[in-house]
Amino acid sequence: MTAFGAWSEVGRLRRVLVCAPGLAHERLTPSNREELLFDDVLWVEEAQRDHRAFVAALEAEDVEVLELHEVLAETLAVPGARDWLLDRKVTANEVGPVFVEPTRAHLEGLEADALAALLVGGMAVEDLPGVDRPTYLHPTGPDRRPSDYLMPPLPNMLYTRDTTCWIGGGYTLNPLYFGARRDETLLMKAVYRFHPDFAPVEQQLLWGDPERSWGAATIEGGDVMPVSPSADGSGVVLVGMSERTSRQAIGQLAARLFETGAADRVVVAGMPKLRAAMHLDTVLTFAAEDVVTVYRAIVDDVTPFTLRPGAGGGVEVVHETAPFLDVVQRALGLDRLRVVNTGGDDFAAERQQWDSANNVVAVRPGVVFAYDRNTRTNDLLAEAGIEVRTIRGAELGRGRGGGHCMTCPLLRDPAGY
Amino acid sequence: MTAFGAWSEVGRLRRVLVCAPGLAHERLTPSNREELLFDDVLWVEEAQRDHRAFVAALEAEDVEVLELHEVLAETLAVPGARDWLLDRKVTANEVGPVFVEPTRAHLEGLEADALAALLVGGMAVEDLPGVDRPTYLHPTGPDRRPSDYLMPPLPNMLYTRDTTCWIGGGYTLNPLYFGARRDETLLMKAVYRFHPDFAPVEQQLLWGDPERSWGAATIEGGDVMPVSPSADGSGVVLVGMSERTSRQAIGQLAARLFETGAADRVVVAGMPKLRAAMHLDTVLTFAAEDVVTVYRAIVDDVTPFTLRPGAGGGVEVVHETAPFLDVVQRALGLDRLRVVNTGGDDFAAERQQWDSANNVVAVRPGVVFAYDRNTRTNDLLAEAGIEVRTIRGAELGRGRGGGHCMTCPLLRDPAGY
Amino acid sequence: MTAFGAWSEVGRLRRVLVCAPGLAHERLTPSNREELLFDDVLWVEEAQRDHRAFVAALEAEDVEVLELHEVLAETLAVPGARDWLLDRKVTANEVGPVFVEPTRAHLEGLEADALAALLVGGMAVEDLPGVDRPTYLHPTGPDRRPSDYLMPPLPNMLYTRDTTCWIGGGYTLNPLYFGARRDETLLMKAVYRFHPDFAPVEQQLLWGDPERSWGAATIEGGDVMPVSPSADGSGVVLVGMSERTSRQAIGQLAARLFETGAADRVVVAGMPKLRAAMHLDTVLTFAAEDVVTVYRAIVDDVTPFTLRPGAGGGVEVVHETAPFLDVVQRALGLDRLRVVNTGGDDFAAERQQWDSANNVVAVRPGVVFAYDRNTRTNDLLAEAGIEVRTIRGAELGRGRGGGHCMTCPLLRDPAGY
Amino acid sequence: MTAFGAWSEVGRLRRVLVCAPGLAHERLTPSNREELLFDDVLWVEEAQRDHRAFVAALEAEDVEVLELHEVLAETLAVPGARDWLLDRKVTANEVGPVFVEPTRAHLEGLEADALAALLVGGMAVEDLPGVDRPTYLHPTGPDRRPSDYLMPPLPNMLYTRDTTCWIGGGYTLNPLYFGARRDETLLMKAVYRFHPDFAPVEQQLLWGDPERSWGAATIEGGDVMPVSPSADGSGVVLVGMSERTSRQAIGQLAARLFETGAADRVVVAGMPKLRAAMHLDTVLTFAAEDVVTVYRAIVDDVTPFTLRPGAGGGVEVVHETAPFLDVVQRALGLDRLRVVNTGGDDFAAERQQWDSANNVVAVRPGVVFAYDRNTRTNDLLAEAGIEVRTIRGAELGRGRGGGHCMTCPLLRDPAGY
Repeated sequence: MTAFGAWSEVGRLRRVLVCAPGLAHERLTPSNREELLFDDVLWVEEAQRDHRAFVAALEAEDVEVLELHEVLAETLAVPGARDWLLDRKVTANEVGPVFVEPTRAHLEGLEADALAALLVGGMAVEDLPGVDRPTYLHPTGPDRRPSDYLMPPLPNMLYTRDTTCWIGGGYTLNPLYFGARRDETLLMKAVYRFHPDFAPVEQQLLWGDPERSWGAATIEGGDVMPVSPSADGSGVVLVGMSERTSRQAIGQLAARLFETGAADRVVVAGMPKLRAAMHLDTVLTFAAEDVVTVYRAIVDDVTPFTLRPGAGGGVEVVHETAPFLDVVQRALGLDRLRVVNTGGDDFAAERQQWDSANNVVAVRPGVVFAYDRNTRTNDLLAEAGIEVRTIRGAELGRGRGGGHCMTCPLLRDPAGY
Repeated sequence: MTAFGAWSEVGRLRRVLVCAPGLAHERLTPSNREELLFDDVLWVEEAQRDHRAFVAALEAEDVEVLELHEVLAETLAVPGARDWLLDRKVTANEVGPVFVEPTRAHLEGLEADALAALLVGGMAVEDLPGVDRPTYLHPTGPDRRPSDYLMPPLPNMLYTRDTTCWIGGGYTLNPLYFGARRDETLLMKAVYRFHPDFAPVEQQLLWGDPERSWGAATIEGGDVMPVSPSADGSGVVLVGMSERTSRQAIGQLAARLFETGAADRVVVAGMPKLRAAMHLDTVLTFAAEDVVTVYRAIVDDVTPFTLRPGAGGGVEVVHETAPFLDVVQRALGLDRLRVVNTGGDDFAAERQQWDSANNVVAVRPGVVFAYDRNTRTNDLLAEAGIEVRTIRGAELGRGRGGGHCMTCPLLRDPAGY
Repeated sequence: MTAFGAWSEVGRLRRVLVCAPGLAHERLTPSNREELLFDDVLWVEEAQRDHRAFVAALEAEDVEVLELHEVLAETLAVPGARDWLLDRKVTANEVGPVFVEPTRAHLEGLEADALAALLVGGMAVEDLPGVDRPTYLHPTGPDRRPSDYLMPPLPNMLYTRDTTCWIGGGYTLNPLYFGARRDETLLMKAVYRFHPDFAPVEQQLLWGDPERSWGAATIEGGDVMPVSPSADGSGVVLVGMSERTSRQAIGQLAARLFETGAADRVVVAGMPKLRAAMHLDTVLTFAAEDVVTVYRAIVDDVTPFTLRPGAGGGVEVVHETAPFLDVVQRALGLDRLRVVNTGGDDFAAERQQWDSANNVVAVRPGVVFAYDRNTRTNDLLAEAGIEVRTIRGAELGRGRGGGHCMTCPLLRDPAGY
Repeated sequence: MTAFGAWSEVGRLRRVLVCAPGLAHERLTPSNREELLFDDVLWVEEAQRDHRAFVAALEAEDVEVLELHEVLAETLAVPGARDWLLDRKVTANEVGPVFVEPTRAHLEGLEADALAALLVGGMAVEDLPGVDRPTYLHPTGPDRRPSDYLMPPLPNMLYTRDTTCWIGGGYTLNPLYFGARRDETLLMKAVYRFHPDFAPVEQQLLWGDPERSWGAATIEGGDVMPVSPSADGSGVVLVGMSERTSRQAIGQLAARLFETGAADRVVVAGMPKLRAAMHLDTVLTFAAEDVVTVYRAIVDDVTPFTLRPGAGGGVEVVHETAPFLDVVQRALGLDRLRVVNTGGDDFAAERQQWDSANNVVAVRPGVVFAYDRNTRTNDLLAEAGIEVRTIRGAELGRGRGGGHCMTCPLLRDPAGY
């Protein structure tokens, strides 16, 4: 049986979930990229090559890498899984009553990997055999709306970090902020429910369920950092509160973490309202136990506060007066938190933050993956004693996510706090 | 007992639901108007005066006018109604776990009209007694996000047409497209469930339920025109298919209309993808049985098709080759459909359409309410023999809705088709 | 002979230039409003009624009001004026070589008032007799580009404040920031050169010439406040430094003011980069010698500094450490500067500032014109002892300018500093 | 002496002007990219490597490549050139009166290549020695406005095609559309006036002068294709009419071409109003005498017309009824014009056009340079018998220009029409 659990941000990374670029990105165009939350289109074949190189480099560090399309195809091979997913995806609400029957019939007949490709990559009306004539009812062309698809493409699945989080020995199924991403979580629920490796831990769910409506309670994994969770009620978790991750969700997650003993302290980073401050991990990530890379122009404007278990099972809010980084240092019990800033002058720093310079992912303390293009920040990391392995970012980085966003740790050791 | 039912677009209007401007519009500012779907801010007191004048003029035409704040306050006075609504509005997902208890406690203590005002107008964290200090967790100021509220303001409730539709003898509870409007439908469900006038017809629901998730199946009443529904399975309904009203919803609604005998023909107007083509009723409304006012620059680009009952209970799609207005004329069995265009040259026409010139509402055949500012279109209507009663549009029109959008007919006679 | 000169912001206003809404606003539509710098379209006839009422109210206060269309028509009646203007407007660069001859021929034949209407309102290709067929070369319709016109419409001329400024006994011909407004200044140059009332003072030009290119040196009158100019070198002028008014221009204007003795102190308000902070007079205007109405949310972020005559004729920059309002108070030698804030809570204040609540114009100390809609700010002004005369703002205010923007003082008495 | 002249789009390319990425792109950031007309930021070092590889590949095809920074540095070494340029760049209008003297003094002291780097890359206030303290008057940071610089950065100079065009034996100095690009043309004027290679041909100017104002008459080289100019009055030139290239300019250029005998036919492509239709060469370029690569979704919407010499020296407009490509074919006297479409399905085609798939540059008939990423279009070109040499486009392509945009042919042979 496979173990799951994320006990730090920098301890040895043993098992990780990624999602390769593919069909969804072939459907990403200048006219729909904004709706699909990308700034630019990708050269998909090149992005795939770069992603394979990233996977190989992770494996070379002894990380077991699971790829979502493959995991999903394995899931679909399990009896009941296909029906469970199609019952939820091929509905009158999603495909329109006219198309329910032919869509279901077509998808029933596909091989598991072909079906997995459409579940992530999207299914257009013209992907249905026998539908070839474009009409208003089944429009073709890149400027179609998501509701014009039978199943919408999910290009942001590339960022597996956001959809599900392991925090200590439990996991979440995150209600994502934008409608364009919501179905990602349903796919993950199917994996946890049916896949032979994941099903044994299904009951370890902490919070979230894509089959329920969560209203204003949304959370994305890029805002969640299990820096030092515990099994004994003394752990620390960092959470960014942002456009995408709301106090409504953070409060609920914190209550669950306190209840399960995974943490007794959630340090919240109240993010300023800026596009560049999308997630906490776009402006701050850990490179070693006591080393963070930070984009100061934003992190200096973060408003920190701390959530603690309240009397009677609730959550108590502690307002902090110290700067955010000081609050983090104290919460981790560190004498000193070393800060590696985004490199270069103001111009270079703004460009590098944009290109995910502060979105590194550690495979063990002091060894991180980072995009090749952020040379100045990478140099500063090296000067601070961090080993930097580079990923090509020319294509992968265009959705504004780096190594941290593209990896969902399934098993990571504690750090030495 | 009060009767309900809408049997045409132009027959005698006997009962209508409106919603006066108020607190929600006092919370509408330059920095949040886009998120709240308004182009500009309103002078609320003046908008209220103009709305009262509109109501008085409707009443002078023997229309019974219900005002939503009042209807909601009456609803809240019914045992069980307040709990029902607060159970659904004051949840951890909506207000955050920290605030559930104090918010509920505060709202329990309010008079019905004060509570109705907050349900429509929104409740800010600082509306809670004892919360006065702005912090990141309960920010003040106009640029707060909807999730920063305990209950978000619903300024688009002014357009009661969109939330619920009577089509013949049944009604819908519409899943609205934008998140900023979704809670409007929940309020209407409470009204239908508890209000003494509405509860008797609650079972006449055709489609929709704000407590369920409808995915891509969204519909807004501005796209729905019960031009000639029937009780015997021979009626005609027009529906605009637009960004906000999807084929997923139209197909379901059509099936229900066929099933209940309210219609055997749904003529669909496939709208071009333009902001000015928001709803069908922003470019075309009926002024008399055989008179429509039309903004040609958009209506000429509409793609028509017709839905008919299919064998075995389904819906059959009939592709039309004739222009949309011809399809409408034939569906209504008219020898001729007279068209009153938006008035003036191209510039004037574009400005007037924007100012809701084609969004008139008839109180009986040949008598319509229209904004005063669209003088050239109103002159053309008069030349076509239509009596035009004017509404002041300086403030009310800034959300891009006119007399048609601001009225939800609860009881309207058939026309003479 | 008529006197000219502006010796304060609040002394008795004796003569003022305004520009009535007209043809240019009939050409302002949803599709071109952004390019023409308006947020919404206007009901032109109503805007004209409201503007006439404003003029009548000014006249009732013994202010002589000149209207630009009339002034321009009188100018065109002067021998040489028409040729001078047409030589500069009807060029291959502006109308295209194909159209120079027919356009000139047509305009030569018009009455002066008809020509004035086209110079301000714009001339479309189809306004040329004999051109009726729309083609790519002479497109019709509201979405045409400015270069599609033979002469572009100038709807912002409504805000006469911006184009030319009297500062003490001299005037400027301002290089405006946006291309859409540049031709306004050329019209004013023609007026100063040829109109019998203006020509005598033509030589009193301080700075600016629409026939030269000014590069990054742009200035708009909404940023210029001759609070206390002098004839003896001891005066004070306030200038906002904003997107539209650059240090390149301010430095040049200050040097001229020092050289001519009109001022020895230019207090500069470094404005934050916000749309709502368009001009200084959108966030601060004077209501009496010692009373300003102020939108604090922006004015509190103003960075003040002062320009003084340098040794050898240059300009010296003095950095200020006190808040802007304190710097203004001291520069005016006041014991106290009373501040009337935008009224209401944060929401109301933001909405009223947007609706020009802080853009009042004084006709004498303590008597101002303000839009009717900003009731809360107007109440606060009244409480501070200011008499408020109201202007209807429903239409006029949609370009984000109020009484101050719509008036260019040609003769105003000193205040009692 | 060096020869100049462009006699076709596909004849042997002998000499070309390019501009390497550099300082201007280091100043291009997320917050200013829109104002600087780029969609994304670049990894500058990588873009430089890719550009050097492009240059080397051109040289391998026996093309002599001039690089603008070097050409400019050589120009500045010529007596009088530096003064001429600084007199025009370091003015009160551009740097502000306070900074004229220290800026000029500093720039006088620089080496020619250092000065060239600042002229293209921009000069910030803090580049002045002794100015280190950021203030409102000399702000630092990436979000500064162009007028905050002493000389603004010119990142679009990378696209040398736009600034100056050789058409047969004459050249233009183009008035560019956006203010952010205007100074590019002044630099080219200095080159033509002073550089030893260019000065001999200075008198061959056809049209344009950056020291004059051209109003609405703007033209960019991406819209100009000297497909078959002549010395004897029988040539053909294609010009796109777009947002950036106006009829006002095209009419003037055509008149000059007819007057000098360079052409007797200008075929105008009236472009639809779309961002993707920026220049004609973004949707159509020539790969051989009778082969064009075309993005049909836009080119099929082009409105063609032809300009011919009119009686008495003017320009006559001939309206065309045939499709644009037919008009081009007939103008070139071809029996057939082979069309290579953008490759792949609608999604792929839209993505590749965006990535400059139709912006190839020929070095001789049938041999073109194209970005590597547009694999499907490149395959179709190869199938049509075209040899495709690839350029890395990951960074260079982010400003939406390819090989055609990045090259300004100074000497190219006629094709065999």
